[in-house]
Amino acid sequence: MSRLRELLRPDLRGKTAYGAPQLEVAVRLNTNENSYPVPDDVVRDITAAVAEVAPHLNRYPDREFTELRTALADYLTSTSGVVVTPEQVWAGNGSNEVLQHLLQAFGGPGRTALGFTPAYSMHPIISETVGTRWVDGRRGIGADAPFDLTVESAVEQVREHRPHVVFLCSPNNPTGTALSLELVRAVHDAAPDAIVVVDEAYEEFAREGVPSALTLLEGRERLVVTRTMSKAFAFAGGRLGYLAAVPALTDMLRLVRLPYHLSSPTQAIALAALRHAPEMLSTVAVIKQQRDRIVDGLRELGLEPVPSDANFVFFGGLPDSAVAWQALLDRGVLVRDVGIAHYLRVTAGTPAETDAFLAAMAEVVPTLRSADTATDPTPADVPVTATAPAPAQEPSA
Amino acid sequence: MSRLRELLRPDLRGKTAYGAPQLEVAVRLNTNENSYPVPDDVVRDITAAVAEVAPHLNRYPDREFTELRTALADYLTSTSGVVVTPEQVWAGNGSNEVLQHLLQAFGGPGRTALGFTPAYSMHPIISETVGTRWVDGRRGIGADAPFDLTVESAVEQVREHRPHVVFLCSPNNPTGTALSLELVRAVHDAAPDAIVVVDEAYEEFAREGVPSALTLLEGRERLVVTRTMSKAFAFAGGRLGYLAAVPALTDMLRLVRLPYHLSSPTQAIALAALRHAPEMLSTVAVIKQQRDRIVDGLRELGLEPVPSDANFVFFGGLPDSAVAWQALLDRGVLVRDVGIAHYLRVTAGTPAETDAFLAAMAEVVPTLRSADTATDPTPADVPVTATAPAPAQEPSA
Repeated sequence: MSRLRELLRPDLRGKTAYGAPQLEVAVRLNTNENSYPVPDDVVRDITAAVAEVAPHLNRYPDREFTELRTALADYLTSTSGVVVTPEQVWAGNGSNEVLQHLLQAFGGPGRTALGFTPAYSMHPIISETVGTRWVDGRRGIGADAPFDLTVESAVEQVREHRPHVVFLCSPNNPTGTALSLELVRAVHDAAPDAIVVVDEAYEEFAREGVPSALTLLEGRERLVVTRTMSKAFAFAGGRLGYLAAVPALTDMLRLVRLPYHLSSPTQAIALAALRHAPEMLSTVAVIKQQRDRIVDGLRELGLEPVPSDANFVFFGGLPDSAVAWQALLDRGVLVRDVGIAHYLRVTAGTPAETDAFLAAMAEVVPTLRSADTATDPTPADVPVTATAPAPAQEPSA
Repeated sequence: MSRLRELLRPDLRGKTAYGAPQLEVAVRLNTNENSYPVPDDVVRDITAAVAEVAPHLNRYPDREFTELRTALADYLTSTSGVVVTPEQVWAGNGSNEVLQHLLQAFGGPGRTALGFTPAYSMHPIISETVGTRWVDGRRGIGADAPFDLTVESAVEQVREHRPHVVFLCSPNNPTGTALSLELVRAVHDAAPDAIVVVDEAYEEFAREGVPSALTLLEGRERLVVTRTMSKAFAFAGGRLGYLAAVPALTDMLRLVRLPYHLSSPTQAIALAALRHAPEMLSTVAVIKQQRDRIVDGLRELGLEPVPSDANFVFFGGLPDSAVAWQALLDRGVLVRDVGIAHYLRVTAGTPAETDAFLAAMAEVVPTLRSADTATDPTPADVPVTATAPAPAQEPSA
């Protein structure tokens, strides 16, 4: 098969397809899914919606997904307080596809995308898949806050690299902390040639007083806010990501989207779920409580959780993250090793899952410490610079 | 919004998003949909399948869609007589996405794709969207067969352009005629640096004795056969396209696909439909009869239908295709103007739709002729060279 490998696009050769194995484990806290199943009455409505469209599957879907765009606009308007119109909304099969549309329209060969690493691992992957040069921006303001991003640093890096697309992940995956609107505004103003994408996949989990970048859309035609139904909405299997921007920008995405990209069932099912928005989102408060429990529990174990506005906690202080990951898996708890030394990421789910995770961690931590004394650097020696995400890591949205 | 237009990828500027309006017309014969709705028992099974997955939509779908690949492999094996394994199968949200994966892996900047125009209009569009240079290959062997492609001509063009991806559309859309396996073999052998994609979206409608290129897969690692459930399978709204190739090739597509690109409902619904394959395909024989009726009827009206292996008929002899298109629409029949002078394309559907179309044509033809005498060239003067597809045309798969 060596001939085929030569025919593969040069920059893809030797790469490994990303994605951790989808393991069957009792406690799965590795992909930031919502641990709560879809409620019975919503299942009934979803099923009824599919029964209605199924006879007509011989016909192409509504290419403009007008009803769905309207429902998503209503959802954003009612939850953010910012009026968002259907013409401002665009959607795809997961936020990955929406990001790909943005990069196909505004990135591509000869263009540069900048993100502040570590962030969502699909940002560089999709950028490079569509031929956009990727620049790994830096985070970190010293050992105490290795993943924070200051306004000054972000602006300086944007001015240095003059990107065509800037990714701001807020709340940031995998580290969990939201960015300030001041930073979003400053990056936008410092990058007059760039589309600025604020990836708010986890926005619904943000702590009190953390506003959405939707509040900045007015008057900023280069600003885009992406969202997903995969997380707070418990809809990862339905694959529905979306964005809000000025209508002129969403209209340009029609030049690159594949026609009829959203199937009739996808549109019908997402609409049914959106009709139950308050119920679908009722888990958010519980999950935020579990996240805060995890933060507290990890601190009590002497570990170093990063402040989180998401449904997961990124925590450091591990002598060897791979060893800790395996020790947790041996105890039936699957978390995520994103390839950053001494850190792991754990999803916040049900109270029982938090119990299981914290119990397993309490068992695991002493073992790690003793192994550490023998062979590894102490936590105080943890390097501040994040390593690049491991190629084998599994994207989470 | 002029700033945004400057930020758009240069080659996209000034382009119009393709896609004719989705008109509400009594007789819709413009997108080669299957006119037969999904049968009740299949609807029940589809609905039950969604009811089963809906509670778990909080979880990501099976990224490898293993069960679906197995079912598609079984379907190909049972219908073609060629043993196709699940590892040989790849799928996407419509064959457009599968084609995009192929072009992202084997095309891209600095690479060339060649197709023989007129063919499926999305081939050049997707090629250029992913930065692949597109070459419009020629068809036509004189005024009697303006859309035929000879082995010699195809081989000569492939040798001339040395493409990285070759598209062979068979049966060809919009003209309807299948290519011979001899041509597929010859093109494959003449293009040692190319992936050869045989787009068989309409294969199930082929006339007796026209074999699938699946029979050529063995021993040809650069050959790909794409299929769709949109046409014979009456599943356009479900968005499920797929391909068969050697496992090493399908594995390379994992480097460019967006993770979890097929939703859980999409997988479940397609599986349910595939379980009813014989029933879902039972309309094929009726549709082929209608196609042949349309061919005969158009000939009786003095028009020039192209031989068809698909669920549509491409026909010439029209003084002005735009005038004929509008005259049909005025009579409640929507057909397709693909931008080729003097030709229109009509989908074969139900007997009642054929009646409506032929009755409308019988009314329209005399009007066209009289207009023609006054202002237009006679059918004998129809240029053999096909014009490029109009930018406003609507892709049909």
